[in-house]
Amino acid sequence: MAPQSLKKAPRCRARDLGIRIGIYEPGPYNAITDVDGVRVGHTTIIKGSGSRGSKTIARTGVTAILPGPGDVFMDSVIGGAFVLNGAGELAGLTQIHEWGLIETPILLTNTLAVGACSEGVVQYMTEKHPEIGNIHDVVIPVVGECDDSWLNEIIGRHVKPAHAIEAIERAASGPVAEGAVGGGTGMITCDFKAGIGTSSRKVKIHDRVYTVGVLVMSNFGLMRELRIDGFPVGKVLEAEFAEMRRREKNYGSIIAVLATDAPLLSHQLSRLAKRMALGVGRVGSMAAHGSGEIMLAFSTANRVPRAASKPLYSIEILKDVAIDPLYGAAVEATEESILNALFAADTMEGVARHSSPALPIERVREILAGKFVG
Amino acid sequence: MAPQSLKKAPRCRARDLGIRIGIYEPGPYNAITDVDGVRVGHTTIIKGSGSRGSKTIARTGVTAILPGPGDVFMDSVIGGAFVLNGAGELAGLTQIHEWGLIETPILLTNTLAVGACSEGVVQYMTEKHPEIGNIHDVVIPVVGECDDSWLNEIIGRHVKPAHAIEAIERAASGPVAEGAVGGGTGMITCDFKAGIGTSSRKVKIHDRVYTVGVLVMSNFGLMRELRIDGFPVGKVLEAEFAEMRRREKNYGSIIAVLATDAPLLSHQLSRLAKRMALGVGRVGSMAAHGSGEIMLAFSTANRVPRAASKPLYSIEILKDVAIDPLYGAAVEATEESILNALFAADTMEGVARHSSPALPIERVREILAGKFVG
Amino acid sequence: MAPQSLKKAPRCRARDLGIRIGIYEPGPYNAITDVDGVRVGHTTIIKGSGSRGSKTIARTGVTAILPGPGDVFMDSVIGGAFVLNGAGELAGLTQIHEWGLIETPILLTNTLAVGACSEGVVQYMTEKHPEIGNIHDVVIPVVGECDDSWLNEIIGRHVKPAHAIEAIERAASGPVAEGAVGGGTGMITCDFKAGIGTSSRKVKIHDRVYTVGVLVMSNFGLMRELRIDGFPVGKVLEAEFAEMRRREKNYGSIIAVLATDAPLLSHQLSRLAKRMALGVGRVGSMAAHGSGEIMLAFSTANRVPRAASKPLYSIEILKDVAIDPLYGAAVEATEESILNALFAADTMEGVARHSSPALPIERVREILAGKFVG
Amino acid sequence: MAPQSLKKAPRCRARDLGIRIGIYEPGPYNAITDVDGVRVGHTTIIKGSGSRGSKTIARTGVTAILPGPGDVFMDSVIGGAFVLNGAGELAGLTQIHEWGLIETPILLTNTLAVGACSEGVVQYMTEKHPEIGNIHDVVIPVVGECDDSWLNEIIGRHVKPAHAIEAIERAASGPVAEGAVGGGTGMITCDFKAGIGTSSRKVKIHDRVYTVGVLVMSNFGLMRELRIDGFPVGKVLEAEFAEMRRREKNYGSIIAVLATDAPLLSHQLSRLAKRMALGVGRVGSMAAHGSGEIMLAFSTANRVPRAASKPLYSIEILKDVAIDPLYGAAVEATEESILNALFAADTMEGVARHSSPALPIERVREILAGKFVG
Repeated sequence: MAPQSLKKAPRCRARDLGIRIGIYEPGPYNAITDVDGVRVGHTTIIKGSGSRGSKTIARTGVTAILPGPGDVFMDSVIGGAFVLNGAGELAGLTQIHEWGLIETPILLTNTLAVGACSEGVVQYMTEKHPEIGNIHDVVIPVVGECDDSWLNEIIGRHVKPAHAIEAIERAASGPVAEGAVGGGTGMITCDFKAGIGTSSRKVKIHDRVYTVGVLVMSNFGLMRELRIDGFPVGKVLEAEFAEMRRREKNYGSIIAVLATDAPLLSHQLSRLAKRMALGVGRVGSMAAHGSGEIMLAFSTANRVPRAASKPLYSIEILKDVAIDPLYGAAVEATEESILNALFAADTMEGVARHSSPALPIERVREILAGKFVG
Repeated sequence: MAPQSLKKAPRCRARDLGIRIGIYEPGPYNAITDVDGVRVGHTTIIKGSGSRGSKTIARTGVTAILPGPGDVFMDSVIGGAFVLNGAGELAGLTQIHEWGLIETPILLTNTLAVGACSEGVVQYMTEKHPEIGNIHDVVIPVVGECDDSWLNEIIGRHVKPAHAIEAIERAASGPVAEGAVGGGTGMITCDFKAGIGTSSRKVKIHDRVYTVGVLVMSNFGLMRELRIDGFPVGKVLEAEFAEMRRREKNYGSIIAVLATDAPLLSHQLSRLAKRMALGVGRVGSMAAHGSGEIMLAFSTANRVPRAASKPLYSIEILKDVAIDPLYGAAVEATEESILNALFAADTMEGVARHSSPALPIERVREILAGKFVG
Repeated sequence: MAPQSLKKAPRCRARDLGIRIGIYEPGPYNAITDVDGVRVGHTTIIKGSGSRGSKTIARTGVTAILPGPGDVFMDSVIGGAFVLNGAGELAGLTQIHEWGLIETPILLTNTLAVGACSEGVVQYMTEKHPEIGNIHDVVIPVVGECDDSWLNEIIGRHVKPAHAIEAIERAASGPVAEGAVGGGTGMITCDFKAGIGTSSRKVKIHDRVYTVGVLVMSNFGLMRELRIDGFPVGKVLEAEFAEMRRREKNYGSIIAVLATDAPLLSHQLSRLAKRMALGVGRVGSMAAHGSGEIMLAFSTANRVPRAASKPLYSIEILKDVAIDPLYGAAVEATEESILNALFAADTMEGVARHSSPALPIERVREILAGKFVG
Repeated sequence: MAPQSLKKAPRCRARDLGIRIGIYEPGPYNAITDVDGVRVGHTTIIKGSGSRGSKTIARTGVTAILPGPGDVFMDSVIGGAFVLNGAGELAGLTQIHEWGLIETPILLTNTLAVGACSEGVVQYMTEKHPEIGNIHDVVIPVVGECDDSWLNEIIGRHVKPAHAIEAIERAASGPVAEGAVGGGTGMITCDFKAGIGTSSRKVKIHDRVYTVGVLVMSNFGLMRELRIDGFPVGKVLEAEFAEMRRREKNYGSIIAVLATDAPLLSHQLSRLAKRMALGVGRVGSMAAHGSGEIMLAFSTANRVPRAASKPLYSIEILKDVAIDPLYGAAVEATEESILNALFAADTMEGVARHSSPALPIERVREILAGKFVG
């Protein structure tokens, strides 16, 4: 491993380095929270160090996204999804595909903690809505996962339902912590330490401005595949990090969540979710066999009330023929979210003295400075 | 409610009443366990009675299906699936669709217990395979659910991970307990008490005999929709049960699992799973909006070893052009499994003094005797 | 073959025999045209007789459905679809899944005539809209097929683009000819002569009444599988028609098209389309390997204008939680449409002296009269 | 339009410029025909010039791919597919998804010629196999399309069934003509003239070498989106071509076809097809609303005989856990195929004096030389 990545270097966001992905401008926080009412909370669990076996070494956590203002259980948001590679799990996906609605928080965690987070969401929801299973239908939690077992002693099952509830309760508007936090605590991307990243775009369609925000839990890829705005940075770094010990299998994954205030239907959000996959591909993913790459998208613009008493509702919808700017925004914000996860995360040592280096920002700056037109 | 259903009448299987669904013969147990190596175990949780609020009234449980002999984690079985109506959850479905493999037990439980069962499976698997998350990939549990909240105080969250492990450990070959057991403990079908049911068929294709076994956790439908071998028994009974208090919403569901020793590929098993949906339809389901109807199918004939060291494997496959008898068997065994769930289950009282009557077998016998040709 | 089916018996509709499928009432024509603005036209091609080889023996045709009043190219209707068994073709399906819109007539014909009908639709549309490929986007025809080669010398390729245009131009409101007409001319169902059938239902949801209309081109199944309102009529007839020469392979198919004036979105129409599959199953289909069973559904309630100049549009939508009566209507109308195709079609002799007998209506009346409760 | 693109510059392949996409080596022809037995044929139709209205101006054609040696109707190849954006048509797709087999040639043409090509395939197949519709099942042609109406007076319907047959009969092994030929004659990519392109990769998995070949009919994108090996060449050229008259709408499309001799099942080929979408994305596509982006993949390694007389067959299969090199090859070969379509095609003038410039190869060389590391 190159020595420059071992010291705790100051971190920044990709944009601070002058990297401009695409043609649209980000919102004020350059985060999924730029979409009004969307809130994000993290629970980070870091414990112990040393060799495997005690099941006490934790590099993991939970990230919660509240998909809109108010109570999404009583007034659902419209959602859609796309599975680029289904070697993973997004609990609740089947119902999102069927109904086109999201009615719970969205949680991100490690693969073996999906059950614990599901338990936490059920506890949280039934305490908030004790009529669930009586007056109201039951609820199916939405929980996505990636495998953080290179750094996290995953069979220690460190995530408890309370951690999930904590992440939900901490969810807030405004800037979003990135890198080795929440569900992303132990995640790695293209062999560098990564985790949670976020970004946003504002697009104008006729006379209205819409915001597209993306948050990823990023955990995929090999170093040689890494591209930054198309430039093959990973190929250059690969030579410099040749000695580094790394995950042998490409067993990563990425869960990407998109929020927008554009008034879209479920099938349109599923289409947007597909474009997020193209953004993942631009950073270097070929969606390896074992890499679960799942995309979820929702719109806060229209809410569907739970009550069946008024069976009709009226909504305004953006035509598909006008949707292309949102597609561009989805690709761009996904790509930049992944970069932000890489730029934010510091070097981390985990179980079995596995270490994942921080992306060497200064070196990246040099590589890009020498090679890119302004 | 008609008085004859209140007393504990002797229960039987549909076939004991002379009902013959379809043209194929069942295997020795007329159960999913007629497929060699497939094992089933139940954990039944029945506690308390009275009005809602204490969260102590339980009519629920867990059913575990081990999808083949030996260790399916090290040598996966081939699987496929179909979602007739996605208003439900089958955790792990995304990966089954992607890889066409099943590598864990299959669990069935109530909607709010998916997380607990997922936790149980993770605990069970990591204890059995401590190399998970190290030498081996992580594992994604397969857990299906229906909503038993008419009888079960579901927000009491009575199912714990240990119950899931217990069901797995109890799994055995041979006859399968049906009705109000395991995951089916609190389930209702067409307003009668139901739960777990199973059936099997043997079909000959050229010179080989294959077995198709089905197990359902059945919880869907309205009384007026119930058909037995096509005959509209529900319409007749509807008049006789007019006063009965029942679930107002059609919020049921069904999870149906098919096992076969026919050598099929994943896409063929997904096709078989679709035919199970036709069997569900024949009992009366129109797959109501809130009724999650999910079908899973697997074949024990070929095993795919986990190790990547030998990248090629050879298997024998049944051509799709020869598959129709298996389709017929899938329809028949699904239909009979649901009937068996109804025939086996006795009247049950649950939370809030909700009661679900047993299917009045004697009355059904009279109706069918008077009306059907032999 | 039983002698009573050889003479040209008077035909009727299933309902004329007192058969009442389900619980909802049909519209005035009991046809897909009960949905305002939906029009149907047939071109029937019957030529020659005798043995195979001259390629001059035709028992085929084209049926056209205009999916709404006015010009669906300029103001599309919303559509959805479901593939129960994809051993067939519905040209244009990919775009319907993607956009959720239908912007052309819907044509039904034989398998080898999809190209000719596609040509016909292109000619018709480009003559009506010469701006296609210039100011307007190109257009993708929607053409479904079944295999009528038991009666039709299909490699004679008797259907020409002009036949497709003729069917479109003949499309009219009001009663719809059924049986051996249009695309259904040479089609067979459960070994009896069938073809085109249609039916409708009116359902009340809160204070509004909606119409669901279905039209099928029905060509599937074996005699022993035939059920009429659940009653296994086919089993009884099978013995009586034991000597009959019939299609050896279960190579049928069914294309079912649903129209409604209920205000539904694309994903809701795809859900309705799935319920049509349950209706097909109730008549006896197990969706045999070679039987393409494809369902298409559209709503005339909201129209999506082609112009992108106004990117937003407002529509009223029926909530999914209120949709169940439409599901019931879809199942019922599909089942009755297939029966109507059987009841309407007379015995037909085709190529190679293959003959398909009419459903023996009097015998069916006897069977049902003796066995069913009123 | 920049003057340098108007003169007929010598064309080459991307690789001739030193561009190396990815890490794997191409086969001898760097073409889909590097997969043994795969053959390609083109029919190119170029007629007339001038303004719109006469319907006589043609810039279109047909490309045929024969997906394996011998007769694929009697011994099908295994196939899979993926729809990145379904605003297009690949006739026959439904059956490929259902059966996982391809049993006809694969044709590529313009949107309004799908019917004519379908007619041509039916004529070709029924002449070759007169038992179709008698002893053999009917056949469903596989025909993909893109919209070439910027250069081609598409409503002239210049493609006739005979052109399709001609392309099939011309199909040959060896080098493949690229650019403005066959179905690609009038196609445009990122505002430059493109059309047909092809590329291949050889990958070693354990001790075996497999070939992956791709052929695209490429017609998508905007100039500013064009990337060559990640480098944003389109941004640079956009400024230089600012005055150029171009397609206003992003109404392109791409059909990409992959062949391999690796022994894969249908679900594995569908997974490969998904990775092709990532290759399309890397050239700059965001899969615009109106851009049908459809991927088809097949394997020549195992053949499935038509006859049902022997219902079992044995095949060797590559495990999914070993598949990643093929994913990389699919991404790489798709990206390079699109570049080859651009590099091969010369400037073309079409209907209404629309002109599409050749990619300025010399300028691209300069841009890349100045900016890329070797």
